[in-house]
Amino acid sequence: MKGAVIHGPRDVRFEERETPKITQPTDAVIRTVATCICGSDLWSYRGVNHIDTPTPFGHEYCGVVEEVGSAVKNVKPGQFVIGSFFASDNTCPHCQAGYQTSCVHRELVGGAQSPRLRVPLADGTLVPTPGDPPVELVPSLLALSDVMGTGWFAAEAADVKPGKTAVVVGDGAVGLLAVLSAKQMGADRIIAMSRHAARQKLAREFGATDIVAERGDDGIERIKDLTDGVGADCVLECVGTGDSMKQAIKSARPGGSVGFVGVPHDVELDFQDLFYTHVRLLGGPAPVRRYLPKLIDLVWTQKINPGKVFDLTLPLAEVAEGYRAMDERRAIKTLLRP
Amino acid sequence: MKGAVIHGPRDVRFEERETPKITQPTDAVIRTVATCICGSDLWSYRGVNHIDTPTPFGHEYCGVVEEVGSAVKNVKPGQFVIGSFFASDNTCPHCQAGYQTSCVHRELVGGAQSPRLRVPLADGTLVPTPGDPPVELVPSLLALSDVMGTGWFAAEAADVKPGKTAVVVGDGAVGLLAVLSAKQMGADRIIAMSRHAARQKLAREFGATDIVAERGDDGIERIKDLTDGVGADCVLECVGTGDSMKQAIKSARPGGSVGFVGVPHDVELDFQDLFYTHVRLLGGPAPVRRYLPKLIDLVWTQKINPGKVFDLTLPLAEVAEGYRAMDERRAIKTLLRP
Repeated sequence: MKGAVIHGPRDVRFEERETPKITQPTDAVIRTVATCICGSDLWSYRGVNHIDTPTPFGHEYCGVVEEVGSAVKNVKPGQFVIGSFFASDNTCPHCQAGYQTSCVHRELVGGAQSPRLRVPLADGTLVPTPGDPPVELVPSLLALSDVMGTGWFAAEAADVKPGKTAVVVGDGAVGLLAVLSAKQMGADRIIAMSRHAARQKLAREFGATDIVAERGDDGIERIKDLTDGVGADCVLECVGTGDSMKQAIKSARPGGSVGFVGVPHDVELDFQDLFYTHVRLLGGPAPVRRYLPKLIDLVWTQKINPGKVFDLTLPLAEVAEGYRAMDERRAIKTLLRP
Repeated sequence: MKGAVIHGPRDVRFEERETPKITQPTDAVIRTVATCICGSDLWSYRGVNHIDTPTPFGHEYCGVVEEVGSAVKNVKPGQFVIGSFFASDNTCPHCQAGYQTSCVHRELVGGAQSPRLRVPLADGTLVPTPGDPPVELVPSLLALSDVMGTGWFAAEAADVKPGKTAVVVGDGAVGLLAVLSAKQMGADRIIAMSRHAARQKLAREFGATDIVAERGDDGIERIKDLTDGVGADCVLECVGTGDSMKQAIKSARPGGSVGFVGVPHDVELDFQDLFYTHVRLLGGPAPVRRYLPKLIDLVWTQKINPGKVFDLTLPLAEVAEGYRAMDERRAIKTLLRP
């Protein structure tokens, strides 16, 4: 089988790989119906995260179960399923508390940009849809594997509730779906920070009430202006740089919350500064598994359409172009069809 | 009048100072009935915080109102009152949200270790007791000016709720009152980290169910052992060093909360480490003013006795010995009588 493999900075190849097989009794192998490129993949693509050895790439997927290990009970061949980028047993205390991405048995699901994928801990990880999805729902279902759940976690970690004011830092796919999530959770006002017309448009479609194009101190000042000098109740940080984290913390009001889901890179904060802000922080890899049943229902009943973040669809064989387009910000997010 | 003045490291003098007067129409001047020494004062006493110029010392107080400015409406001469170390108007949006220590008009109340004290923003800052307190309640009422409210905020910020497991890092007066606060909020299990017999005893009296004397990696391991490998729901950080913050974060379970109230000194955390813990953080100078009415009631009705943290009482003239005793850990907390 041929799949995506990253060899080094800006070197992603569609090449022959071993076809995944059941290796543990708790595994499933799925036929990937759709996969995609994550903003977090760009850290490796751009050489910020070092690649030691050619590595199968991608961690977002949905597809049809082909085969299950002997211990798998809840998932059956033929079912259309979605899973998180971290496999989890869904039974350990951390899973039971809703933090499946901290599962004591968690395992990264790597190499999803391929026609076949081995998913460990299949019973805990995979959630079937109510039936075979109509083709037009596939992009939105795929989005639930990571990007939509990550935006949802940002909103939840930032304590978005009806009537609150939310600021979303970052206009990548996660940021845009964080806007959608804040809207679903009843935020009264949603301020999206974006300087790209196409992304501003989608942010508004997803529920943004205000757009702030400024960044840094100017951006913080604009947020203060828009909130009568008080700051926002909820800030959803969807980038992961020191600048974006600073932007997020300084945009929140005392007693406000920042949910941060952009994987932090070289972010260090002086805790004395943080101390005097009175801002609550919660972040981490989104526990996507917790949200899958609810989000599948919202997509299935067409209450949300997170698949709109895919503005480029390519055959999997053209995965390298998919990365280029996202790297150059020609595409918000690339869907790949095996 | 004579009061405490810090001149430099380990140099606190009881010396002549100007008697405070009303300088703003919103001020009050009180006759200090009791004041005390805060663990946070030791940062200056030990030379960690630099002292540029001789500075009136102390920020915890209770006493009787002597005089009020022309704009003061709610506080009257003769009333016994308690206030926070930060004056606040109690009307701005941050105050209304319960974060009075982020008040847009906040002002440090300094020089409280003296027989007279000017309190700015008296209407917002001072809360009268229901009547003249019996002398035996004075230490507990004094504790509400900072240390008890700070322990309370640690517990609240760490999201202590009935049935939860709480770990308290730090066995100073704030840590001990954080134990008391966690008990009041219904924690099922309270693990106090302490290696001093007298403090362990008081921690147990205040509600600690377990004592952990180990620190660092051993301390973290003990907490994991005591929580079936899961970690604590709530961690109350009451020290403010890099080690104690690391201890706190690593003691919490994924999805758990750390409330940090020790003023951080040289604490830097890599956000990527924090990201993968899934731990929620909230800290800051405790909004003592928010808690005063409730805590006054708990003391007045003798449901709590936070004054027990004062294990040394001295005349104000002996303030220098009070600092020495706390610096050398001969005393948990020193009460001073003008």
